[in-house]
Amino acid sequence: VGKKKVAVLAGDGIGEEVMKEALKVLARTSELFPEVQTTYQHALIGGAAYDVHGVHFPEETRAICAASDAILFGSIGGPVEEQHLPKWKDAEKNALLGMRKAFDLGVNVRPAKVYPALSHASPLRHDLISGGVDMVIVRELLGGIYFGKHSTDGDSAEDVCTYTVEQIKRPLEFAFEAAKSRRKKLTVVDKANVLDTSRLWRRVALEMHKLHPEVQLDFMYVDNAAMQLIKAPSYFDVICTENMFGDILSDAASVLPGSLGLMPSASLGSQIYLYEPSGGSAPDLQGLNVANPAAQILCTAMMLRYSFGAHSAAAAIETAVDAVLDSGIVTKDVARPGQASVSTSAFGDAVVKAL
Amino acid sequence: VGKKKVAVLAGDGIGEEVMKEALKVLARTSELFPEVQTTYQHALIGGAAYDVHGVHFPEETRAICAASDAILFGSIGGPVEEQHLPKWKDAEKNALLGMRKAFDLGVNVRPAKVYPALSHASPLRHDLISGGVDMVIVRELLGGIYFGKHSTDGDSAEDVCTYTVEQIKRPLEFAFEAAKSRRKKLTVVDKANVLDTSRLWRRVALEMHKLHPEVQLDFMYVDNAAMQLIKAPSYFDVICTENMFGDILSDAASVLPGSLGLMPSASLGSQIYLYEPSGGSAPDLQGLNVANPAAQILCTAMMLRYSFGAHSAAAAIETAVDAVLDSGIVTKDVARPGQASVSTSAFGDAVVKAL
Ligand SMILES: CC(C)[C@H](C(=O)O)[C@@H](O)C(=O)O
Ligand SMILES: CC(C)[C@H](C(=O)O)[C@@H](O)C(=O)O
Repeated sequence: VGKKKVAVLAGDGIGEEVMKEALKVLARTSELFPEVQTTYQHALIGGAAYDVHGVHFPEETRAICAASDAILFGSIGGPVEEQHLPKWKDAEKNALLGMRKAFDLGVNVRPAKVYPALSHASPLRHDLISGGVDMVIVRELLGGIYFGKHSTDGDSAEDVCTYTVEQIKRPLEFAFEAAKSRRKKLTVVDKANVLDTSRLWRRVALEMHKLHPEVQLDFMYVDNAAMQLIKAPSYFDVICTENMFGDILSDAASVLPGSLGLMPSASLGSQIYLYEPSGGSAPDLQGLNVANPAAQILCTAMMLRYSFGAHSAAAAIETAVDAVLDSGIVTKDVARPGQASVSTSAFGDAVVKAL
Repeated sequence: VGKKKVAVLAGDGIGEEVMKEALKVLARTSELFPEVQTTYQHALIGGAAYDVHGVHFPEETRAICAASDAILFGSIGGPVEEQHLPKWKDAEKNALLGMRKAFDLGVNVRPAKVYPALSHASPLRHDLISGGVDMVIVRELLGGIYFGKHSTDGDSAEDVCTYTVEQIKRPLEFAFEAAKSRRKKLTVVDKANVLDTSRLWRRVALEMHKLHPEVQLDFMYVDNAAMQLIKAPSYFDVICTENMFGDILSDAASVLPGSLGLMPSASLGSQIYLYEPSGGSAPDLQGLNVANPAAQILCTAMMLRYSFGAHSAAAAIETAVDAVLDSGIVTKDVARPGQASVSTSAFGDAVVKAL
């Protein structure tokens, strides 16, 4: 097998500096695991792309991604004071929805776990997380109200939420498989007491369950799920849900670990997968060498696992990040009051060393 | 002025027993505040109604409510083991959506505050709530995807979210006024980067803001709002949002106080308003005299304020509940480990005494 081509889209804000650490870790991984051989094509996205091309998702970037085996994505977005500039207007939306559509990214996978060593940083009371919080949210990413008809007619507006059985099967298939390799519990979140699309989700989930009888399946209304994520996060193993509910719940879950800098995510397409940290571009931290690169580093692990099937290399990176955090080496965002913290690059170095 | 007619719909589960305490408190309030004079018409709703009439929202109940000045509502829903019975199928939905439509209940108002005396019960880390958590969520209740067209056609389904300027103005009008009587901050939650209805909400909010310049208005995407409710709940004063986002966010916010038994809510119609605790029917607690009646008692305060304009009587009830909680008299749901707790009726008695 030849080298895998990775499109690297650092984007805005802290994107550049956390990406540097991720690539550092990947380089070391290649030395240790000869099966991991990659080449990089850097491309512009978001505000950085706008400066050069006048659009947030240039054709050039699309072509580079299309010619790659995987996309390593940073983050998008500018400072609060600059939001009125065309550079930032709808930057995130244009880039992300553009990529999703261009590469048929129909399934988003986002873990949310509380690291025992960082449990002080979680916003939740200690006894609520001491039983362990370790879930994966599988979100449908190309359907629902996001991609339905939108219209405005004078004093009224309309957005249409549509789902087909085919669209629903795709994330559920992934979710059932993910549950099998975990604690075998799948919670499908919907609003089946109100929505026809939710009732269709239930029908499809129940049918598919026959093929995966070893998975324990339950259904939960989205309002209740929003409560349980806060009150009883240990309840969840795998959650699967539609696009908008997934947007809300995966962001809610992303704060449980205690920092947005900790969790990676993967968006799975028909050919190419995209890997993206769940935090934002944090423009206020840009250039300060203080941002947490863990999420971006863990994106490389997800990439090795899902895109390149390099399971042991992926596990090695995850174990290294765990070990670094366990040893008390932390960036500012997850340091205890009074605890010393390390820089972005020092954290990356520590992961390389732990590898 | 004659006596005010209150329709009392205790419903299922703990409804009966917490309602009893609310009526006890109202009776004492009438003695102390001669302007508060009420008569009660009891009526069936939910599973209790189904047993007698075969429907969850009987015509008889509708008529009693229609002839009343306010509706005091308990809760609806049966035990997990009985969910397959027709008695419980869609009970909550049928009753609640039925009432909302019948009485044009277009605005839902739900406070979420952490009582300092009960801060140990909040699921959030102490330092996140020590700055005080005291918000009101104003939810549009008769529009959006709830009441749009729902359709299923073989292997695909559709739900339509619609809003008109008129529908949007109603909750916003209330929200601006509420903000004025509070900390003067209004956050409109939407998904304006994706939805046309959200963009219409923004347009209307910006127009109305000109009439309420003393209110500080901001906009927040719903995914971000779900994060901030957990990470920085002190940020919020008044939140206003559309029906489905309001369903999710008000339930998420309802767990912040530490028990679902603490917060009341009001649904405002064109003629009649409905008052309802934010917790559910808790069938597992039914008949045990342990449920927290605070939310139901605080519903009577909201009723006195919004339906009957009896502001000092309303404030007296709220102060009494505060005082009881402050004095360490608590039901089981909010007791500290090892702390003695009192029964439902003893809590009601304590509020009566504090009045
Ligand atoms: C930027 C926005 C369109 C996007 C979404 O809502 O999907 C973002 O919130 C996300 O979750 O990746
Ligand atoms: C029962 C259901 C239809 C209802 C809603 O979604 O509005 C409930 O969740 C609520 O919030 O009162």
